[in-house]
Formats: sequence, structure tokens, C-alpha cells
Amino acid sequence: MSTPALQRIPDGVGLADYEALARERMDPQAWAYFSAFAGKGITARANVAAWDAIALWPRVLRPVADLDLTTVLFGRAWPSPLLVAPMALQQLAHPDGELATALAAAAQGVGLVLSAQSSVPMEKVIQAVRGDAGRGPLWHQLYFQEGRAATLEQVRRVEAAGFEALVLTVDASVRASRAGVVPAGTGAVPSSASLREVLQQAPTWDDIAWLRAHTRLPVLLKGILHPQDAREAARLRVDGVIVSNHGGRTLDSAPATALALPRIAEAVGDALPLLVDGGIVSGTDILKALALGARAVLVGRPVIHGLAVAGAMGVAHVLRLLSDELELSMAQCGLRRPADADLDLLQASSQ
Amino acid sequence: MSTPALQRIPDGVGLADYEALARERMDPQAWAYFSAFAGKGITARANVAAWDAIALWPRVLRPVADLDLTTVLFGRAWPSPLLVAPMALQQLAHPDGELATALAAAAQGVGLVLSAQSSVPMEKVIQAVRGDAGRGPLWHQLYFQEGRAATLEQVRRVEAAGFEALVLTVDASVRASRAGVVPAGTGAVPSSASLREVLQQAPTWDDIAWLRAHTRLPVLLKGILHPQDAREAARLRVDGVIVSNHGGRTLDSAPATALALPRIAEAVGDALPLLVDGGIVSGTDILKALALGARAVLVGRPVIHGLAVAGAMGVAHVLRLLSDELELSMAQCGLRRPADADLDLLQASSQ
Amino acid sequence: MSTPALQRIPDGVGLADYEALARERMDPQAWAYFSAFAGKGITARANVAAWDAIALWPRVLRPVADLDLTTVLFGRAWPSPLLVAPMALQQLAHPDGELATALAAAAQGVGLVLSAQSSVPMEKVIQAVRGDAGRGPLWHQLYFQEGRAATLEQVRRVEAAGFEALVLTVDASVRASRAGVVPAGTGAVPSSASLREVLQQAPTWDDIAWLRAHTRLPVLLKGILHPQDAREAARLRVDGVIVSNHGGRTLDSAPATALALPRIAEAVGDALPLLVDGGIVSGTDILKALALGARAVLVGRPVIHGLAVAGAMGVAHVLRLLSDELELSMAQCGLRRPADADLDLLQASSQ
Amino acid sequence: MSTPALQRIPDGVGLADYEALARERMDPQAWAYFSAFAGKGITARANVAAWDAIALWPRVLRPVADLDLTTVLFGRAWPSPLLVAPMALQQLAHPDGELATALAAAAQGVGLVLSAQSSVPMEKVIQAVRGDAGRGPLWHQLYFQEGRAATLEQVRRVEAAGFEALVLTVDASVRASRAGVVPAGTGAVPSSASLREVLQQAPTWDDIAWLRAHTRLPVLLKGILHPQDAREAARLRVDGVIVSNHGGRTLDSAPATALALPRIAEAVGDALPLLVDGGIVSGTDILKALALGARAVLVGRPVIHGLAVAGAMGVAHVLRLLSDELELSMAQCGLRRPADADLDLLQASSQ
Repeated sequence: MSTPALQRIPDGVGLADYEALARERMDPQAWAYFSAFAGKGITARANVAAWDAIALWPRVLRPVADLDLTTVLFGRAWPSPLLVAPMALQQLAHPDGELATALAAAAQGVGLVLSAQSSVPMEKVIQAVRGDAGRGPLWHQLYFQEGRAATLEQVRRVEAAGFEALVLTVDASVRASRAGVVPAGTGAVPSSASLREVLQQAPTWDDIAWLRAHTRLPVLLKGILHPQDAREAARLRVDGVIVSNHGGRTLDSAPATALALPRIAEAVGDALPLLVDGGIVSGTDILKALALGARAVLVGRPVIHGLAVAGAMGVAHVLRLLSDELELSMAQCGLRRPADADLDLLQASSQ
Repeated sequence: MSTPALQRIPDGVGLADYEALARERMDPQAWAYFSAFAGKGITARANVAAWDAIALWPRVLRPVADLDLTTVLFGRAWPSPLLVAPMALQQLAHPDGELATALAAAAQGVGLVLSAQSSVPMEKVIQAVRGDAGRGPLWHQLYFQEGRAATLEQVRRVEAAGFEALVLTVDASVRASRAGVVPAGTGAVPSSASLREVLQQAPTWDDIAWLRAHTRLPVLLKGILHPQDAREAARLRVDGVIVSNHGGRTLDSAPATALALPRIAEAVGDALPLLVDGGIVSGTDILKALALGARAVLVGRPVIHGLAVAGAMGVAHVLRLLSDELELSMAQCGLRRPADADLDLLQASSQ
Repeated sequence: MSTPALQRIPDGVGLADYEALARERMDPQAWAYFSAFAGKGITARANVAAWDAIALWPRVLRPVADLDLTTVLFGRAWPSPLLVAPMALQQLAHPDGELATALAAAAQGVGLVLSAQSSVPMEKVIQAVRGDAGRGPLWHQLYFQEGRAATLEQVRRVEAAGFEALVLTVDASVRASRAGVVPAGTGAVPSSASLREVLQQAPTWDDIAWLRAHTRLPVLLKGILHPQDAREAARLRVDGVIVSNHGGRTLDSAPATALALPRIAEAVGDALPLLVDGGIVSGTDILKALALGARAVLVGRPVIHGLAVAGAMGVAHVLRLLSDELELSMAQCGLRRPADADLDLLQASSQ
Repeated sequence: MSTPALQRIPDGVGLADYEALARERMDPQAWAYFSAFAGKGITARANVAAWDAIALWPRVLRPVADLDLTTVLFGRAWPSPLLVAPMALQQLAHPDGELATALAAAAQGVGLVLSAQSSVPMEKVIQAVRGDAGRGPLWHQLYFQEGRAATLEQVRRVEAAGFEALVLTVDASVRASRAGVVPAGTGAVPSSASLREVLQQAPTWDDIAWLRAHTRLPVLLKGILHPQDAREAARLRVDGVIVSNHGGRTLDSAPATALALPRIAEAVGDALPLLVDGGIVSGTDILKALALGARAVLVGRPVIHGLAVAGAMGVAHVLRLLSDELELSMAQCGLRRPADADLDLLQASSQ
């Protein structure tokens, strides 16, 4: 695989067009893999519907000419509160795979969470973008499935490669498929492992405490929805929590992340930064997440759609449109910084 | 009818596929019989929608490697909280009828409630499965339509056959059809009896007290929705209540069982075990029922669909998939036993 | 027009089938007239949806063998709480028109409210049914549009014909059509009268008091939705109120009658009997109305559908099916009399 | 362009028909321009749905023969509470453009808010209608995009032309398009200006105070949704507020105006007159707006539909039908004047 070629984006394409274009261009099995959901799709649909159901109360005539998206995470300022969510096997969507995604994200000042199942080696991905001064955060996703020794080996490789945080996905030790149980970290291919074998290897809070003690990188837990779990994460001095239901791909009927986020924000306050993903497909969705207490936001499927349509150019375009929409909606709501968004934006207090 | 033949299940078939496959394969009249509902179908649709509307708040990083489905009913431990609901005339769906259903249920550790209108003699059904050490409970359903003497005769036959509990259906003394009134116990064929003739023969609470005094088997009442009726059942020392609206086939506008169950649980507390049926088609539906206070759960139409598609093999597959989904969703919610499910799973207290 | 011929009802036809059959058989303009609604149809749809949204909590094992529908209105017992709503110009639906409707209603023990715009003379209609010992109430509907003298003349004619109550429609002094304003009492044909001309002639509460003083027949007001208007009716010693929005044909956005009825019942208590119409198409709808405080219920469009399909036989069949459904649903809810229905049927108190 | 020709309206056309007819007759790009909405159309749909969801509780038997629509605005009585909303580039819909709209509005006693982007010069429009004794108010819309000097020049031209109030649109300093940022005042054609350049020029509350001090015309702010912004407008002695979300064309997820209006009414009381637009397509919608606290109401897309179908005659017909519906629904609710509408109409107090 050489440097990604620059592909042309069809004229007049907007955010709303990418999903349909991607479906046309992708291999049906790859489309099925990226658009899959658990069960009846209750959670997958609820993710989208819950953002849509939240109102934004705009403000007028406020000075916002110096609006910018600067976002502080773990003591460092980044150009944007956006990150690309960890998604496996991106070469299924486009031959340039994660390399294209990473280049595009860096070019747009957007962060990247590289999947544990990247189809491009992590070292190759990070070398391509680490030196970019305008880039966003570079984090790496892990499962904790093979025991502490194997996990630590993976952590050391991630640290050595230069990633800036570890994102431990904790909501998908196992999930269902038609053909049987799918343990985490095996991508699209079901394993023959029994549920109980998989559960034997699943991490617990003790493993989190152990991991926290064995790396100097910030550790984020991804896949928390219950306020009590967020509180436990804070108690164990985890560095961040990503409120997520795995895009509706694990437990069908898990609450929409837009419902879980404010309850977690209420439970943990400022104890640790919160991020969120799930059903976020527009700049207004992002702004609502910020108002509900997220410090930053992960975007998943829209990025895959951009990748499938036009490789790095498609990803860059999607991320640019999302960023533009976010800026525009902030301006329309009289906000100068992401951190200025709060619940009044959604509730319009009369005082 | 000889021993059921083993039929092949088409490749890649999942729970969601059985209904459509069954519709293709069944005689249209049989399909109409099993999928019928009362009136406008308000209750039939509400049953499904009410389970779907309930959220499950998953928990992460809890030790659940020893997860199992063991369920205690009437002092005995069974492998699963699942039972097959009583459904009449199963040979309409498949020539092996109730025999196939019973064999499949026993093989999967799932209980069986044999219908009073079994198309296979009850003795033949129970002999085929009673000796299976891994089987679930074997119960028999009764109506109480012909007076005490006839009912007692039937009870004695059920006892003699070796069934382990009596399930008295109390919500369907009569129901409507286009052609007139249908008294209970006559299956798909409307009778010419007038409503008043049927009501003359309908049982009352006095009959329940009498029955309770005339058998040593546990007696469950099936078809209770109103909390006051559940309380009356407890007062009369009935052994269990099955919260049911007859799959939406009797009173259209009866509440979804997912709405009635928690109100009954609140009314009767631990006075007697509660079971539930109606619209349960997935493992997450089952888990929600357990969280709302059900000790066990009856599954109806999905079993008929499995039966119609592939006889015993189809039933076994459907029950296996349901059990797997239940285990998986319990793992995703950090639960080790069915009895660990409670309202916090649905409401996510912040404390 | 001779005595209505007895038409055959197609085999297997149930309540749910009549609307589609009627649409096939009716002249498109007649269909449009009877199925018309105001504006966007918000109220017409809400009428149906509001009944559907109300749950009935069935009761089991209660003695209901002596169930009957006897209903007392203005001091006299009638066989049923059903009446046929006043609908104009029924010969548009079938050549036998109101005569067929009246004969069928009487044969089923159902009451009749003859429209002020009957296409058959009122004397001819009442003579055909008055002597029927098993019939329901015979009431006549009036508008009050032409001033007191003209109204009194009409009242005297109604009294002389032998009708047993006056139903004054008060919600449709005027309504809109595409071609202009339609004053009450002119049926399908718009008049050229201006809105203000129509309003000049519209009755007020003073006219009601005057009318109440000028007839010994019970006077009911039809078309009341606001609790304050019901209270005013009670204050003026009106004999009954029919909660109605004219089937969604007058003010679009008027509340569904299922929403207005309980508020009116709360406002006026037992001061006068309440009746209701609007969207009632099944026995469970009728039972819900009784539980919300209605003493009796008017059915409109289903009667027209029966009339269009098979004349008197069609009306009789529709009314029989509705009555059977009502009895059946009462039995399923453990009720012996219409008056036994109360809010607990809908709310299921735990006490 | 000469005096608009009188076009014939197809027979039997009602309000509900104009949208479909307009779509047939308009150039697809013009149709797209006038029916555009922001993002997913959440706000555009919510506008309509929110009016539909509000009930009107009719009153009966009240004397309303002297009903009229007289409406006082800024000390002067006008024949109607209706105004045509400011819409740009009306010649895209019909060659007679704003001239036809103005003539029709004046003929119907309806007010006009001429767009800053009128395709007919403002002087030509106002000269055609100013002398009409039966006309409604003549207001002019402005953006405030080019700085104070340019704005003041435009204000002086508007004053000189004889407009009676200034409507400053404050919710659309910038909006998104597929091709980039669209600054206010540029109609359908996106500009190449960056978001930040646009925001540099956007007005603030200081500019409003300055403008208020530099004209003797009443100044209304259009595009306010947040109660705090309405309160600020009152504090600065702005003369009126138009509650608007720009027809769902700016911030997607902005609340429906039917939700924002009562909150603003509660926040500012009688401090200044409130007007509203957004999704108003029927007389009952207008009446609901009056009941929620609007003094007058702006209608947009239905006017464009009328214009596209039949020029001035189409606009006049649409406005006549809306006025007739408003009068009729007021009569049905027992109201004699627009100002008599209040919250009891929507809530039906029992007292």
C-alpha cells in the first residue's frame, strides 16, 4: 500500500449524501459489517432518534466573531472536540483503510482512536500523522481479552508507537451473531469459543486498576452507560470515560447515549472528562453532546462512509462538513467555545 | 405418528428469520389460526412494543464467568427460566405436533406447558420426555368449562400422566370470532353456544378454591392482568400466576403484559411466583421480564414458527437461540443468575 | 319507497370489513359526504386514536352469567346503551335510507336519533318502529337556525310524531367547505350565506333556556366538549349532554371525545346523563366510553357502512356485532351491567 | 413588468391543494429554494407538528354575530392579524413577484413584510398598495450585515419609501449550504465568505440599541426563540418581537415556534407585542398562535404556493381562505375578537 491517492468527491455532495453513496460503492458484505446492529436494532435507531429529539435554543446578537473549537484533553489543547471512533478493518471500506482515515483526520485537526483491529499496522498509521502540528489527539483502542500479560505486551507496543492514550473498550467482551458467540477482538468472524470460555477471559474492575498502575498513558474506558459504572471508573482514577453502546451493536435495548450521557455527567461531575459516541451524524448532534456534558465526541459511521466514497478525501470532506456545521450551530447559539455549551442551550431557562 | 424425523435447518437462519419462513411453509389457515388476534390488534401490537420500549442499562467489568440460568420453581431447580406456552393443535403447524415441541424443549432444558387441546395425547407426550434428566418442568394447561366433575376427571388424568403442575387458563372463558362466540377449549372452531350459555359454565373464584383443595399439584392461574386479581389469587393460596393477555387474542385493549407485570409484582410481592407471556421474542425480552419480577417466562409464537419450519429441530434451534441471547444479555448486564435481575437494570439508579 | 327488502350479507363479514365493502358499493360523492372531515383531519383521526389508546384491565373469575345491557335513560329502561347517531341524507347510502336504519335499530334494541335532515319524513320513520316493544329510544335531532318561531314549529311536529326527546346540535352553526360557508341544516350543499349572516341566526344559551321552557320532552345538547359549557347546560336544567365533535367534521383540532368526556364527567358529576359519539367503532370503544362516564353511546359511520352494504340487514348486523362485542368485553372485564363500568376498569387501582 | 394580470384559479381548489399545484407549476430549482430546510428537517417538521398537536376546546351558544378580526399594532387598528412573511426573490415563483403579493395582501386587508431581497424594487411595491384604505400594515425587512453606515442608508430608503416598521432579521447572520457558508442577504447563492468573515459583520445587541436610536419607525426583531433574548429586546425598548426559526431554514433542532411562543409570552408579558411564524398553514393554526400570546401572525410558504399557482389571484385566494378559516374557528370557539383568544382555549380549565 503506497501513499493514499487523492480521489475526487462528486460535485455537490453534502453530509446527507455520503451514506447512500457509500452503500452503492461498498461490497455488500462490508456494508453489512459496518452497518450491523444487535437484535431488532432498537438501540441503533434510538441513538439517532435521541439526538434528533433534543432541541437547541438559539441565541441572537451575541458577539461570536472569535469562535473557535479549541478543546483541552489531558492537559493539552487540540484544534477540535472531534475524534474518529475506533472502527475495525477499515480496508473493507477502502484499500487505503486506516491510513487514509488517519491522514484525513490529522489534516482536519480531528483526533483519531485507532482500532485494536486495524487493517493497517499501528506503527505505519501513527508515523504518517504524528508529526502533523495541526493534528488532533492520537489514541489507541484495546480489548483486554487474552489476560494481563498479553494485554501489557500490547500496551507497550502502543506506547512505543507513540499513541497518547489508551481506550479500553469494556462493553463488548462478547456479542452475538447468527452463527454463535463473537468474542471481542475478532472482528467480523465468529469464533467457536463458547460464551463461558469468553467470559472466563473478560476483564473486571481489578484488571482496570492493575492496568492503570502499569502505564503512564491516560486510560479511558469506552462503553459505559450506567452512572454507577462511571462512578466506579472515577473512583479507580481512570482518566476518562467514553459513553457508548458500541453503536447499537452489542446489547439491543441499551439506552441511547444521549440519554445516558447527562445521567453520567450528573453522577461524576468534573471528576474526569466524558466523551460520547453513537448516532452522531451532524454538527448539531455534536453540539448537543457538548451541552449534555461531553468534552469531546467520537464519530463513526459517517467517517466510514466518507472513506468508502473517496478514501482520504472523503474522510476529510466529511470531517470538514461536520466541523463547519458545529461552528455554524455554535454561532447560531451564541457560543464562542465548545466548553460554553451547557444545559441552558437545551432547556432555555427563563431566568 | 412415529418418532419425529430430524429436519435440516436452512443455513444462516436466525431468530428473526423464523416468522417469515414459517409463514411461507404453513397452510394459510393454520398460519391465520396461530397469528390471530382480537379486534384491531391493539393488544397484540402493544405486547411487542412494550418490551421494545423498555431499556436495559448494561454493567461492565463484573465477574460473570459462572453465569447460569438455573431457576427454582415450586422447590425444584430447573436449567432455565423458559417454558413453552400452551398452544393448541400444534399438528396444524407440523405433523409431529406437540411431540416434536416436547422433545425439543426437553433437549434444551426448557419447560413445557401442554395445551388442553393438544393434538397429541398427553400421555404420549409426557412419556417421551419425562425421563430426560436435563429437561425443564412439565405442566399441563386446563380450562374449567364443563363443571367441577368433568374438570376433576381431567385433573386426575393429568396427575396420572405425571405432569408436575396445573395451569388453569382463566382469561378466555369465551372469545369472539367473526362467526360468533367461541367458548374456551374448542380451538379454532366456533361453537353455536350463546354467550350466556358459555358464561353459565365459566368458573369463578369459588371454583379455584375448590380445585386448590382437590389436587396436590401446584395450581397456576394463567391470564391475570389486574393487580386485584393477583392479590385474590395469593389470598386463595394459588401456587403461581401467569401474567398473560392470551397473546392479544381475547380482550383487545387489554394492557401489554410488560405493563401489567410490574404492577402485579408490586401488589403481591413474594407471595407467589409470577410468570409472564405475550410478545416475548428475544433474549432481551426475557431478561426484561425477569427484571420486572417474573420468575420464569413462557414463549409461544416463536416456538410454533420453529416447529413449522423444521419440526423438533426448528423448535430446539429457536429455544437454543433464545437461551443464548438471554445468557449473553445477562453477561452484558453483569448478571450471574436470573434472580439477580431487578428494576435497577431498567432504571439505572444513580446511587 | 316500499318496505325495505331483506338483503343478503356476504359470508364471513365482520365489523372490520364493512367500511371497505361500503366504499366499494357507494357512489363516490356519497362516500365523500359521509367520510368527510374538517381541515387536516386532526380531530377525525384523534377520535379513533384516543379510544385505541385507552387500556381495559380485564377481571377474571367473577360471576357474570346474568350480564345484560339494560340502560336507564330519562326514567325508562332500555335494552341497550347504544343509539344510532343522527346522520343526514341516508338515502345517499341506500335507497331505503332512514327507514332501514330505524327498523334495524329497533330490531336490535338500539336507540335512534333521527337527523333533522332525514331523507325520509320523520312521521314515516317513527310509525314503522314506535310499536316495537323491544326497541330503543326514539329521539329527534334539531338545529336552531331559523329563529324561535321556526324552531318551535319543528319541535311541535317532532312531539306530535311521537319522538321521545329532542337532541339539539349546538356545535355546527356553521362549518367550512371548499366552496364557502355551510350553515347547519343544509347537508352537503354549501349555501351562499356569509359567515356573519349565519352567525346572526345562531342560537345562544338564552335560546336553550327558552326551548327548555317550551317543551315537555327531554332536551339534550349535542356537541359539547368544554367542561364549562357542560356545567352551563346543567345549570339551565338541560336534560342531557352528548359529548361530540361532530365526528371531526366541524372544528379541526377539537379534542377527541374520549379526552373531553372524563373532564366533563368530572365537571358535572351526576347532574345530568352524558352520552358520547366520535370514532366509536367497536364494542371495546363503547365499554371505554361507559367507563369514562357515558350513560349511552352514539354510533355513526359504522351504521352508514352497514346501510350501504346491505340496507336494513347490514345495519342490523353491524349493531348486533357491536352489541355482542360489548357484552363479550363486559364479560371479560367481570361486569354485569353497563353502569358497573368505572375508571378502575381503565386504571387498575392496586387497592 | 406591467400590472399583474388576473389569472384564473382552478375550480374547487382549497387551501390543502395549493402546495401540490405549486410544486407542479414551479421550476424545480425555485421549488427547492422555497421549500428548503436546514439539516435533517427536524425543525421544519416540528413547526407543523407542534401546531397540529395543540387542541382547541370549542365553546358553544355564545353570541358572536359581531365577530371581526380587527387588530391593533403600534397604535393603529388593522383589518386582520395576518401578515405575509418576508420571503426573498418572489419572481422565482411568478413573474409578478412581490408586486402580486402586495396587491393581493392589500386587497385582503392582510399586512406585508417586504423582504430585503425583494425581486421588485421596494418603491414600486409600496406605491402600488400604500393608498389602499383597506390594506394591512406595510413593513420592511432588513438584515444588518454590512455595518452601521450601510444599514442606516437602507433604513433611510425604507423610511422614505413609506414603510411603517422595520423588521430586523436576527437569526440568520449566516447559514449553511452544501457548497459552503451563506451570509444573510444573499438569497439562494452561496458566497465564498468564510464563517469568520461573516461573523465579523454580524450585528450585536449594541447595534440594535443604536438602530433603535436612529429611526422613528417601530423596530421589530425577527428570529427570537429564547426567552432571555426576548427579555433583552424588551429591555432595549425594541417595539416588537417576531418569534421565528426562519421556517426551519437556519438551525436544525431549533424549537418549533409553537413551543417557543408561550415561553416568550410568559417571559415578557405585555412589554411588547409578539408575532410568530413557522409552519402556519391554516386558520386553526393562526387561532392557536393568538391563544398562545401572539398579537399577529406571519404566513410564508402558503403565500408562495398561491403566487406560483395564480399570481395575485392565487395569493388573494389563499389569504381569503386563511382569513375565513380563522373567522370560522373563532366562531366555533365563541370568540369575537383575536384578542379574546387565551390559554383557556387550549387547556379548558374546569373552573
